[in-house]
Amino acid sequence: MLTLDSDKPRCNCGIFGIFGHPEASVMTYYGLHALQHRGQEASGIVSSEFNRSGKKGKFNVVKGIGLVSDIFKDDETLKTVLNGTGAIGHNRYSTTGSTGNKANIQPFMVNYKGGNLALAHNGNLTNFHTLRERLESAGTIFQSTSDSEIILHLTARSQQQDQVLQIKEALEAVTGAYSLVILTDTSLIAARDPHGFRPLSLGRLDGSFVVASETCAFDIIGAEFVRDVEPGELLIVDQEAIVQNAPRSLRISASKSGCHQCIFEYVYFSRPDSRIFGESVDRVRRKLGKLLAEESPIVPESPDDPVIVISVPDSSNTATLGFVSQNVKKNVKSRLEIGLIRSHYVGRTFIQPIQHDRELKVKTKFNTVKGVLKDRVVVIVDDSIVRGTTSKQLVKLIREAEPREIHFRVSSPPIKFPCHYGMDFPSREELIANRLDQDIEAIRQELGVDSLAYLSLDKLLESVPHESGSNYCTACFSGQYPVPIDREVSKDAHDE
Amino acid sequence: MLTLDSDKPRCNCGIFGIFGHPEASVMTYYGLHALQHRGQEASGIVSSEFNRSGKKGKFNVVKGIGLVSDIFKDDETLKTVLNGTGAIGHNRYSTTGSTGNKANIQPFMVNYKGGNLALAHNGNLTNFHTLRERLESAGTIFQSTSDSEIILHLTARSQQQDQVLQIKEALEAVTGAYSLVILTDTSLIAARDPHGFRPLSLGRLDGSFVVASETCAFDIIGAEFVRDVEPGELLIVDQEAIVQNAPRSLRISASKSGCHQCIFEYVYFSRPDSRIFGESVDRVRRKLGKLLAEESPIVPESPDDPVIVISVPDSSNTATLGFVSQNVKKNVKSRLEIGLIRSHYVGRTFIQPIQHDRELKVKTKFNTVKGVLKDRVVVIVDDSIVRGTTSKQLVKLIREAEPREIHFRVSSPPIKFPCHYGMDFPSREELIANRLDQDIEAIRQELGVDSLAYLSLDKLLESVPHESGSNYCTACFSGQYPVPIDREVSKDAHDE
Amino acid sequence: MLTLDSDKPRCNCGIFGIFGHPEASVMTYYGLHALQHRGQEASGIVSSEFNRSGKKGKFNVVKGIGLVSDIFKDDETLKTVLNGTGAIGHNRYSTTGSTGNKANIQPFMVNYKGGNLALAHNGNLTNFHTLRERLESAGTIFQSTSDSEIILHLTARSQQQDQVLQIKEALEAVTGAYSLVILTDTSLIAARDPHGFRPLSLGRLDGSFVVASETCAFDIIGAEFVRDVEPGELLIVDQEAIVQNAPRSLRISASKSGCHQCIFEYVYFSRPDSRIFGESVDRVRRKLGKLLAEESPIVPESPDDPVIVISVPDSSNTATLGFVSQNVKKNVKSRLEIGLIRSHYVGRTFIQPIQHDRELKVKTKFNTVKGVLKDRVVVIVDDSIVRGTTSKQLVKLIREAEPREIHFRVSSPPIKFPCHYGMDFPSREELIANRLDQDIEAIRQELGVDSLAYLSLDKLLESVPHESGSNYCTACFSGQYPVPIDREVSKDAHDE
Amino acid sequence: MLTLDSDKPRCNCGIFGIFGHPEASVMTYYGLHALQHRGQEASGIVSSEFNRSGKKGKFNVVKGIGLVSDIFKDDETLKTVLNGTGAIGHNRYSTTGSTGNKANIQPFMVNYKGGNLALAHNGNLTNFHTLRERLESAGTIFQSTSDSEIILHLTARSQQQDQVLQIKEALEAVTGAYSLVILTDTSLIAARDPHGFRPLSLGRLDGSFVVASETCAFDIIGAEFVRDVEPGELLIVDQEAIVQNAPRSLRISASKSGCHQCIFEYVYFSRPDSRIFGESVDRVRRKLGKLLAEESPIVPESPDDPVIVISVPDSSNTATLGFVSQNVKKNVKSRLEIGLIRSHYVGRTFIQPIQHDRELKVKTKFNTVKGVLKDRVVVIVDDSIVRGTTSKQLVKLIREAEPREIHFRVSSPPIKFPCHYGMDFPSREELIANRLDQDIEAIRQELGVDSLAYLSLDKLLESVPHESGSNYCTACFSGQYPVPIDREVSKDAHDE
Repeated sequence: MLTLDSDKPRCNCGIFGIFGHPEASVMTYYGLHALQHRGQEASGIVSSEFNRSGKKGKFNVVKGIGLVSDIFKDDETLKTVLNGTGAIGHNRYSTTGSTGNKANIQPFMVNYKGGNLALAHNGNLTNFHTLRERLESAGTIFQSTSDSEIILHLTARSQQQDQVLQIKEALEAVTGAYSLVILTDTSLIAARDPHGFRPLSLGRLDGSFVVASETCAFDIIGAEFVRDVEPGELLIVDQEAIVQNAPRSLRISASKSGCHQCIFEYVYFSRPDSRIFGESVDRVRRKLGKLLAEESPIVPESPDDPVIVISVPDSSNTATLGFVSQNVKKNVKSRLEIGLIRSHYVGRTFIQPIQHDRELKVKTKFNTVKGVLKDRVVVIVDDSIVRGTTSKQLVKLIREAEPREIHFRVSSPPIKFPCHYGMDFPSREELIANRLDQDIEAIRQELGVDSLAYLSLDKLLESVPHESGSNYCTACFSGQYPVPIDREVSKDAHDE
Repeated sequence: MLTLDSDKPRCNCGIFGIFGHPEASVMTYYGLHALQHRGQEASGIVSSEFNRSGKKGKFNVVKGIGLVSDIFKDDETLKTVLNGTGAIGHNRYSTTGSTGNKANIQPFMVNYKGGNLALAHNGNLTNFHTLRERLESAGTIFQSTSDSEIILHLTARSQQQDQVLQIKEALEAVTGAYSLVILTDTSLIAARDPHGFRPLSLGRLDGSFVVASETCAFDIIGAEFVRDVEPGELLIVDQEAIVQNAPRSLRISASKSGCHQCIFEYVYFSRPDSRIFGESVDRVRRKLGKLLAEESPIVPESPDDPVIVISVPDSSNTATLGFVSQNVKKNVKSRLEIGLIRSHYVGRTFIQPIQHDRELKVKTKFNTVKGVLKDRVVVIVDDSIVRGTTSKQLVKLIREAEPREIHFRVSSPPIKFPCHYGMDFPSREELIANRLDQDIEAIRQELGVDSLAYLSLDKLLESVPHESGSNYCTACFSGQYPVPIDREVSKDAHDE
Repeated sequence: MLTLDSDKPRCNCGIFGIFGHPEASVMTYYGLHALQHRGQEASGIVSSEFNRSGKKGKFNVVKGIGLVSDIFKDDETLKTVLNGTGAIGHNRYSTTGSTGNKANIQPFMVNYKGGNLALAHNGNLTNFHTLRERLESAGTIFQSTSDSEIILHLTARSQQQDQVLQIKEALEAVTGAYSLVILTDTSLIAARDPHGFRPLSLGRLDGSFVVASETCAFDIIGAEFVRDVEPGELLIVDQEAIVQNAPRSLRISASKSGCHQCIFEYVYFSRPDSRIFGESVDRVRRKLGKLLAEESPIVPESPDDPVIVISVPDSSNTATLGFVSQNVKKNVKSRLEIGLIRSHYVGRTFIQPIQHDRELKVKTKFNTVKGVLKDRVVVIVDDSIVRGTTSKQLVKLIREAEPREIHFRVSSPPIKFPCHYGMDFPSREELIANRLDQDIEAIRQELGVDSLAYLSLDKLLESVPHESGSNYCTACFSGQYPVPIDREVSKDAHDE
Repeated sequence: MLTLDSDKPRCNCGIFGIFGHPEASVMTYYGLHALQHRGQEASGIVSSEFNRSGKKGKFNVVKGIGLVSDIFKDDETLKTVLNGTGAIGHNRYSTTGSTGNKANIQPFMVNYKGGNLALAHNGNLTNFHTLRERLESAGTIFQSTSDSEIILHLTARSQQQDQVLQIKEALEAVTGAYSLVILTDTSLIAARDPHGFRPLSLGRLDGSFVVASETCAFDIIGAEFVRDVEPGELLIVDQEAIVQNAPRSLRISASKSGCHQCIFEYVYFSRPDSRIFGESVDRVRRKLGKLLAEESPIVPESPDDPVIVISVPDSSNTATLGFVSQNVKKNVKSRLEIGLIRSHYVGRTFIQPIQHDRELKVKTKFNTVKGVLKDRVVVIVDDSIVRGTTSKQLVKLIREAEPREIHFRVSSPPIKFPCHYGMDFPSREELIANRLDQDIEAIRQELGVDSLAYLSLDKLLESVPHESGSNYCTACFSGQYPVPIDREVSKDAHDE
């Protein structure tokens, strides 16, 4: 089976929540559709029919393996099963097979002394193992192997009387990355860890409030962007918030190590039409392309023979535009061309009947436009290189179109370290930059290109906004982890 | 949708377990197939790849809605996914719809400090609400609304060091009905509550041990019946048990209120080819028919015009044979006929496109053999009457075949009380015998028959074995509940 | 995969038609459900929205592989897709796999100069190959490998102006067995070949007319039986027939070789609650049992030790009752017992994960009731033996219950010849009676029983009605084929 | 349900054929994947296990509704069911619902006197009704409502002895558009109508020959492009062709009205990475963009405020590049931006739970990149406008991003006439250019843009190659139909 962008890091999830809307689950469905790029293997929605009398409301849940549109195929599901004015949803990558354990699909939905609780989580907890062992000693049973379940247990065990304080206490006990939406019997609660690793934004729609990983989920339903949920903020959207037209906000106390937003969200994860961490992704990505062209230009030998610049569609399109525009500015003769066509019919279920043929794999996804490349000096702009395997196949494919030279430009630095805060990278050993010891020349040879250049970390940091104490996590490039982890997280531990 | 025997009480489940067999999940599949009559709406198998080194083994699970053969349609599931030498399985009635909450499908599979734990339960706990509240206060979260989950939490919270003692402690804290199979990282554990409400038997197959709700599950796989698991017994089948060729056995301590085996298992639930509570079900059922004929015979007006005795296939076939044989003995002229043909193609998914037509419902399941009934005095023998709705439709159907008279004989007493120990009866108000205040004449009129008689409770008790302190629960007939319940269990509480 | 009654001959199909009913497809659905035993692997319904203006009506079709209730799972299909006041339906055995060619599933639906035409056929044409070759020479293309398609081509090629005469001409060109329902733009047409091999009956329901293979399909929808469609009759049910309250009738001319109704319909195929060929199937089957007991009784050694008579459920239940009643009459001490329990959960999809284990196969379908058989002289009554493989396994299974002796009695003669008129028998070489050269002693040894007896052909003929020139085809027993075939029909030719 | 590009004309199909390859159906699967854009609602493959002894080979078929990857989900289907060294495949638009008549899904597979025949057709026959009536009079029955079936009947009725001549005779009887692949018991036959309306190319792969609608299907399997199948050519690929390394070629005689290749294939249908009618589609499309900028430039008021040029992804990307490059050449200050992001997760099953909300429909497919458009003069380049409904919604969406002005440029002339040669256009009345009587100002107002310009027909013709008598059909723009039709083809007639 071929997964889309199989050589890109994968985000663990996209989350969405809404409170106070008559068609809450329908809005969540659209929101998850807009966030589909953040998780394509499993999805779920929990809705709640709130009831103000204090009795437990009714929670409804539908979860499944596949794209959002596969799971909620039946119109009736949204309208009949997922009733209620509040809902949360989750997209994720699931490494489990179709017949395997589905216990890890979110949102998680449980009962405890405080009533119903449903939770959807984006991020990874770094003290997961320590907490799990502590809870196990105290007699807790676990249904999943997910770190997210920890938060539910901590909430249930809190001695606080108030439910919001129970949740706050739970969040103060965990470390690492979390952007969260929680549905309770009376409210929608959103929270973002004190480092702000993952994005989370607040919006408004017809008197209701919405929360989503990215603002593109607001656009699809016509919601208005209000502001980012701040690092360390706990937002309570309940009946009172609707009346007051403002959610209540608490601060999660934490040992101050400052804000560390994931810079890779700008490089690759987030959609270019989203605005995260205070800036449009498109704008940052265009700047990455410009600085890349500035740092590592390809100058044609003769002005009559401009270099051909192509992007790897669609993720590096914006950076490629930036790259070309910088050339124009510097009078470097180059021409943007569509050299690669991408098939958009490659879904999860695409079979590779001939397993051994690696070349076919890349060909089901990409084809070259031959006339454009032949006898030309070609620059490929890509946003990142992880394992390098797809890049290598791509270069091979482009070689068949007989360009004169191929130059590879990457709009981010070499990825050398795994992420512990919510990205699903291959292991350290599989990262080409780590494997080849960051030796650019060795990587160039392995990819089979005439030249190779990455954007420097300095320039990357120059491309992103730095207002009001914004700071970034660059661990995958620099190895500087802002939060230590209690144990190297093997994939098995998180997803069996 | 039409469910089979929709007017019969429904058993909550059938359970099966095996340890030490190279094809454990395949054997469990066949065992569940043989126990299909005990639960037809959902099913699941957990298998374990045991590992003697002490490290946690790998547990595999497949669960779903439908018949066993629907869920494990794919041969590969059993062979590839459900690996291992130990397995447990569960059939159940699920009141949840196809898109609803599947959290209540068993076996439950969790992790806790002692490792993996999977559990399948037949029966109802009577102190469920009290225990749940206590656990909730202590910070426990619940994934399901099932009482069975309680046992897992109690085990996890036990301070005992030894896992078997943890389970024993948990079982000593619960009251009510349970026949259980539990899979741990090193063993299969089987237990039956001190009253012995539900059946549970131990068998042997090629050096491995098997446990099942009924012995018909042993026959299908060629296992040999060893003995019943005794009321209050906790059996440990582990590697040592295999070597010793005998499981270890503990006693669950309990306030002595004695053995109370469910007499309705003999009347209707168990298969006639099973041996439960020390006796063949077939033999008991035949005796019920005899005593019924003795108590309430139908004597033909003339020996040349014998009465026609028909059964409601298939559940009352054996009792009907007993009824006729008693007639022979007493020289009452009667003739056994197949007056009703039952369709065996009516499955879970059978649609009733015309919802309002109640007659069509019974006709999709039964048809009369007209020549046999016309102008005859007909005796219908049925094993029980619950709501009375199907019986009434059946009588109406038979009337269309123009018999001279219709007499209805029931091989058990009137059902007047709900069951709190594992049968899914309608509410008290829906039971025809309760509704019509046990007035046989009123029930006769409602059914529209010429005479109606039930077997007396005394005769019912006379039909069942009474060796070595065997005693029976007759609560549904007598209202004498051997174990009090902490709260009237509404259906909502157990299956939302 | 295990098929039900895998050792019984299989009928090619059941057909149903209705005209003039507002819920025609719903009625057809129920009718096909009642005829499910005549074909369990594929099913289809064509409905027509008649329109009196002369313009072509709209025909709707839904077909699929599986049971009727699997294919029409979706309530909406019947109500929304299959609109109209006329419909025909078909159940069949399909030898094609789930992914194979579905072109042979009926009803066939085509367009020709006369408008729309849909056809459902039960039976086999004996001059199929000759006609197909003739049509091919004339430039006809074939979509299926089915003989039924021939009738459509012959109709389309007829030079008759009137559509009914076109169909009549087509039927006069074919020989062999056919009971047919045809839907045209203005009528439902039913026909039965001049020999009357397969049953077909006419009924009435609320002013509409219905036609079905067996009367049990009338009972389920509450239709009234009018009469059999006569051998050689062509019935036209159109708007006029509704107004006149009587279908028009034509005679299909044929070289007179007389009526040859399939006697095996009485022995095994038809449901006991149906009335075919002028008599109740139940009554005939009971008589078969009586004559069998008369011809080949088993007398117990001592009156205190009666023989135990058991049936192979459900198909031989009625004959077994007849067998026992004859014993009673003759004062042969015998006792009817339920010695075999049959699982009714074995569907098409039942997997046999251990393919090599033949014993498991019979065990998933049958189990013995042990106490009933142990140390007894047991008589098994079965309706027929085809290959003998299942009988052999059944005997083996019964042996495990340790009876003293096993006697096998068959309520029909040895099957020695294949059927060319619509039954799907194994090849001649596989028939045990043919293979062992009709040597009863050899068959007895192969089955492993203490004695074996079949009913004689004379007695079989004595059991069936003979009024008004009724005559029977006994070819499978006697080898006397009333209609010659143009070529030995291999299975491949009919179902590729 | 939302279909992709619901406002674009839809091509009737893509076809593929291969002969002489050990994995013929696997290659066909990949070929159909590459041709997915030519038909996304139904697909099928027929393979043949050729046998040289003259006996009929075995044909295998799998067809279904959905994307290629949905239908051939099961790896085993290709490897186990679709055996053989020859195969043909077809992608199509089906207007039938999921439960409706599937008889129109191609390839069609039939039997006739000459053996097996399977056919896949791209195009529309213009004398369909005349021929169908003639065949019906002669007694032909029709299984589908497709014009393609006609070719099979004509072949079967031909009196020619040689199969190739039978097919030739059939093709000489039909008029209109057809690119065909036919599988016989001994060969793969490819044909293209004398006007050459639809593309069809010949390729070579490891000693086998392949035929496909577009060359992108060769690229994916690594086949080498040999040449176009010529208008009026009938190619025979059989064992001899393999040995000779050249297919045999016949000429279909036709009244000479010359070559009329579909110019819309260049404008929108074909993939930019394909080479059709002797030229790369990418190159033509780029030229269309250039000439459009030349004819209807947008000059910024000030050089410091360049106009923003955006494409409607992905179909107008190439034309947009051409547009911008012409601006550069002419020193018109403009900047290419990615102003619209397209979701590639919108599949066939995407539900629109809120049917009435037309805006949501466009938002599930597109989102704007706000920063890029705000306060800017924006030029949208699209390849064509059909109904205008999507364009209108798109403009509305872009307006929400608050540009100063919106200018709409279309790289083809106004579409005013339906196509009778294989494109599925809306009816004449629905075409915006026809509806508004070609009044550009009226269309501009309806779309709500500040200016609107289409490419002229002259410039369109200037962009395409004209070597060696190449000529084009421009009927949808000009109304000049090169081949008359026998009856206005309503959609009902072709797809009921």
